[in-house]
Amino acid sequence: MSTGPRVCVVLSGCGVFDGSEIHESVATLLALSAAGAQVGFAAPDKDQAHVVNHQTGEVAEGERRNVRVEAARIARGPVADLAEVDVADFDALFLPGGFGAAKNLSSLAFEGPKGTADPALVKIAQDFHAAGKPIGAVCIAPAVLVMALGKGHVTIGADPGTASAIEAMGGTHSTCAVTEICVDTENRFVTAPAYMLDAPVHEVAAGISAAVGAVLELCS
Amino acid sequence: MSTGPRVCVVLSGCGVFDGSEIHESVATLLALSAAGAQVGFAAPDKDQAHVVNHQTGEVAEGERRNVRVEAARIARGPVADLAEVDVADFDALFLPGGFGAAKNLSSLAFEGPKGTADPALVKIAQDFHAAGKPIGAVCIAPAVLVMALGKGHVTIGADPGTASAIEAMGGTHSTCAVTEICVDTENRFVTAPAYMLDAPVHEVAAGISAAVGAVLELCS
Repeated sequence: MSTGPRVCVVLSGCGVFDGSEIHESVATLLALSAAGAQVGFAAPDKDQAHVVNHQTGEVAEGERRNVRVEAARIARGPVADLAEVDVADFDALFLPGGFGAAKNLSSLAFEGPKGTADPALVKIAQDFHAAGKPIGAVCIAPAVLVMALGKGHVTIGADPGTASAIEAMGGTHSTCAVTEICVDTENRFVTAPAYMLDAPVHEVAAGISAAVGAVLELCS
Repeated sequence: MSTGPRVCVVLSGCGVFDGSEIHESVATLLALSAAGAQVGFAAPDKDQAHVVNHQTGEVAEGERRNVRVEAARIARGPVADLAEVDVADFDALFLPGGFGAAKNLSSLAFEGPKGTADPALVKIAQDFHAAGKPIGAVCIAPAVLVMALGKGHVTIGADPGTASAIEAMGGTHSTCAVTEICVDTENRFVTAPAYMLDAPVHEVAAGISAAVGAVLELCS
């Protein structure tokens, strides 16, 4: 239908505590749709690190869910296997946040800056970066991006611990307000704090919309 | 934080095929947040009718999920038991759509117009209606509202089968485009088609935003 830039949105499940942050993911899709972009979804085809009962905040012991299958709830249908995404099919990559980015796309939540990013994420990030294609990331995902590529000037808002982790992984960090974005023109990274700051959803969406806009501008 | 109208958003799980439609739910929250409304979440505390694998579209046999616990993924935290919502605590009720409205808030998806609405939904809809408080509903939820109250002039877009079901349950139906809304001034119902029409997410969100705006206007 649309003929705009083709953006691969990388999801990590469905739900802030064990997957993609739902509000951030939908805000991303809204901004991409309004701008006429073409969206493809991808997620790793593996079990989530764990399942969190979002009513209680506790880990649901013994329960298993697949990252890609749960991501399909946000996508409203099939999601590609992240390991099979071809950079040639897209003009940009975009990573919403949520603990899924730090638990399923990487081990950041469990191991801090000494952790590792999912091999499929590392490969796709390297491929887009090598092709000079822009990468957007919001919330905690900018830290995961730095973990995957070992560099980048990004924002995750204002959290000192995460900012230190970013520096320890080879990146640099700027403090931003929730509606501001950080553009690393050299690396073509666009990042925004989203729910890493305590803000109402419409302000989170405004920051994400600005990030999406900057990514799409870098596609042209 | 906000001092605007207090709106109870009724969720039915998390995911278009077995719960609340995620995009519609977030579009509702975005519009409420931007307007300065105060949001409370409620969902029935019971098992979903079934669990659908959103990657394949097939029922996940043997899997069980609780409607309220899954709704907490959209709410980003605790959701009230629908059976315990006190109409005195809110100025309006709002129902996003998704198959969960037709499977968990009612048996519409399985039994058509001869089905029944969840008792807790019937009670809360009756309470809000009796108090003269506005009720918003989008996508398939307007049909569930008519099922619960046995009346109302609503839209679910343009689907003839669902429009017939609405008439069979005691309501009337107007065809609407995705960005249009239907306001039943007598009953104080506001409805919009959302994803009952095949439209891009930003148009669905525009229709929902208009519905939210009309509901909030009826609160003043």
